[in-house]
Amino acid sequence: MTRIPFDEMQSTIAKAFRNAGMPAEKAQICARVHTESSRDGVYSHGLNRVERFVEYLHKGWVDPNAEPTLHANLGAMEIYNGNMGAGILNALFAMNRATEMAKANGLGLVSLNNTTHWMRGGAYGWLAAEKGYIGICWTNTESCMPAWGAKSGGIGNNPFIMAVPRKEGHVVLDMAMSQYSYGKLQVTRLKEQKLPYPGGFDNNGVLTDDPGAIEESRRILPMGYWKGSGFAILLDIISSLLSGGLTTAGIDKYDKGSCGSCCQVFIAVDPLKFNTLEFVDHAINETIQQIKNSVPAKENTEIYYPGEQSLRTRKENMELGIPVDAGIWEKVIQLAKQ
Amino acid sequence: MTRIPFDEMQSTIAKAFRNAGMPAEKAQICARVHTESSRDGVYSHGLNRVERFVEYLHKGWVDPNAEPTLHANLGAMEIYNGNMGAGILNALFAMNRATEMAKANGLGLVSLNNTTHWMRGGAYGWLAAEKGYIGICWTNTESCMPAWGAKSGGIGNNPFIMAVPRKEGHVVLDMAMSQYSYGKLQVTRLKEQKLPYPGGFDNNGVLTDDPGAIEESRRILPMGYWKGSGFAILLDIISSLLSGGLTTAGIDKYDKGSCGSCCQVFIAVDPLKFNTLEFVDHAINETIQQIKNSVPAKENTEIYYPGEQSLRTRKENMELGIPVDAGIWEKVIQLAKQ
Repeated sequence: MTRIPFDEMQSTIAKAFRNAGMPAEKAQICARVHTESSRDGVYSHGLNRVERFVEYLHKGWVDPNAEPTLHANLGAMEIYNGNMGAGILNALFAMNRATEMAKANGLGLVSLNNTTHWMRGGAYGWLAAEKGYIGICWTNTESCMPAWGAKSGGIGNNPFIMAVPRKEGHVVLDMAMSQYSYGKLQVTRLKEQKLPYPGGFDNNGVLTDDPGAIEESRRILPMGYWKGSGFAILLDIISSLLSGGLTTAGIDKYDKGSCGSCCQVFIAVDPLKFNTLEFVDHAINETIQQIKNSVPAKENTEIYYPGEQSLRTRKENMELGIPVDAGIWEKVIQLAKQ
Repeated sequence: MTRIPFDEMQSTIAKAFRNAGMPAEKAQICARVHTESSRDGVYSHGLNRVERFVEYLHKGWVDPNAEPTLHANLGAMEIYNGNMGAGILNALFAMNRATEMAKANGLGLVSLNNTTHWMRGGAYGWLAAEKGYIGICWTNTESCMPAWGAKSGGIGNNPFIMAVPRKEGHVVLDMAMSQYSYGKLQVTRLKEQKLPYPGGFDNNGVLTDDPGAIEESRRILPMGYWKGSGFAILLDIISSLLSGGLTTAGIDKYDKGSCGSCCQVFIAVDPLKFNTLEFVDHAINETIQQIKNSVPAKENTEIYYPGEQSLRTRKENMELGIPVDAGIWEKVIQLAKQ
């Protein structure tokens, strides 16, 4: 397995982005977030997504120079136009702004319309937690999943993130509304394996754990069946209403790539505005302790809290280098050449 | 099937609550919400929950006279002590207060600590939507589900609600974190049926659709496996940190019935503070239209948006009367006798 040191990966990606027309500082920040995603094990939205992002820059689907502009200010809530800038930059701006508002008043909500793919949603949860804030955020997407009861796509997989700051390791949930991503289906199929649990319906409408059958039918399963379907619908509508931007149906019509002109919502709360640090630490740690004290389903296995495995992968990848697919890494190196 | 008119059910339940020591006005409001839950088809938390609520009043686990008191005011965020009052009354107060704050500033967040079971969480989503607001709310609960990877209970099923106002019928998601409730398992077992999809693990650790096997193992399944488990953990921690109240682990230790001294979070947003009514209607209706236009998984079936089936049940039950289990109805009549 090829492993690349963090700094080498970041500087290579940054060069690729500069070559595609991005100003140096913006390229550096986007490259950092892509690299951090790979570092934490979210390879699909880290290094592996660089080529597609460069393609979007070339097509003009992402404006490399854009900055978000204020659309409305309601005190505890601010709405920004993302101006089709890089989704990562807009999302970092929005969560940072939400934490500033939370610092002042306990609570801040920032929404974005007309933004682009934020890559790994968890990045903005980790950001809030790293700064000491509770973070909640979500995005809508183009349609990629059938609603419950349907066999053709109509809803987004609308990732939803919740994060809580903790000294010994933040607690971070980062989940899309589909049980598995198409990326996971592909990886599993290439390994000639089955999914751990059924991940969709085959062309005969039968639930299946065969990734290839689901890739063929495009009938990927919402997590929790009707629950994930309903959750995706509400996340979509609310992100649109909170930002004045496009719904999933609107993104489909706009048709400028994955998440082209999507909407996002960022909420930050300062838990120390009305709690002591002792209370906060106790609440989080007794919850983790209760989970850790449960009887494992399989002997000699561990029960993880959300975010714990990301942190382990992070440590390993910082020590040993970030594992890459040699072919993908070579492509990014080519994009980075002057 | 026995069917009872709305008004008769409400006044009977109100008498039962008055007999258990609740002031008349409070009893009337709680009875209305229980009746509305049964009217909308959520029988488990409507009429069927009256006897247990009366028991909690008798045990002193719910204070029939309590009013919420302000604990902290941060502008767009207010924190109240529920003082162990009736969960329904506290939750109505909190969502109403959040909508008032949203009316003033676009956004309001109200949290409750030290409150009690709110019965049907959807009630507060419907309330916000009925008043024209986007509503989001959730509660934590005592532990009733194993975390992912565990075979003993350690996390709550922490219902989560999102609601959006719509002239032709609000869009309302009301979901617990378990794939099925224990109530659903019981009902399915009594009918000698299987669950539509696996709902938990049996004593051998095998996923099963046999409700009795899950009731025995107590290994009910989080929706979406690891996803619902992680979501439940974050909802729990955040509700505690946003209100200064007990986590699931704390509720377990407190041990005053289901949801005794739990925490709840209520968020309301006025979508018309920064959008036109045309925009709001269009965003919601194009989303519903896109779902309705999908190809149904089974011929001649309909694809529903979240809340649509509740509304149909509501209409039917208002026309024909609310269906009741004759034995349960008789018990409530006895509780209502002077």
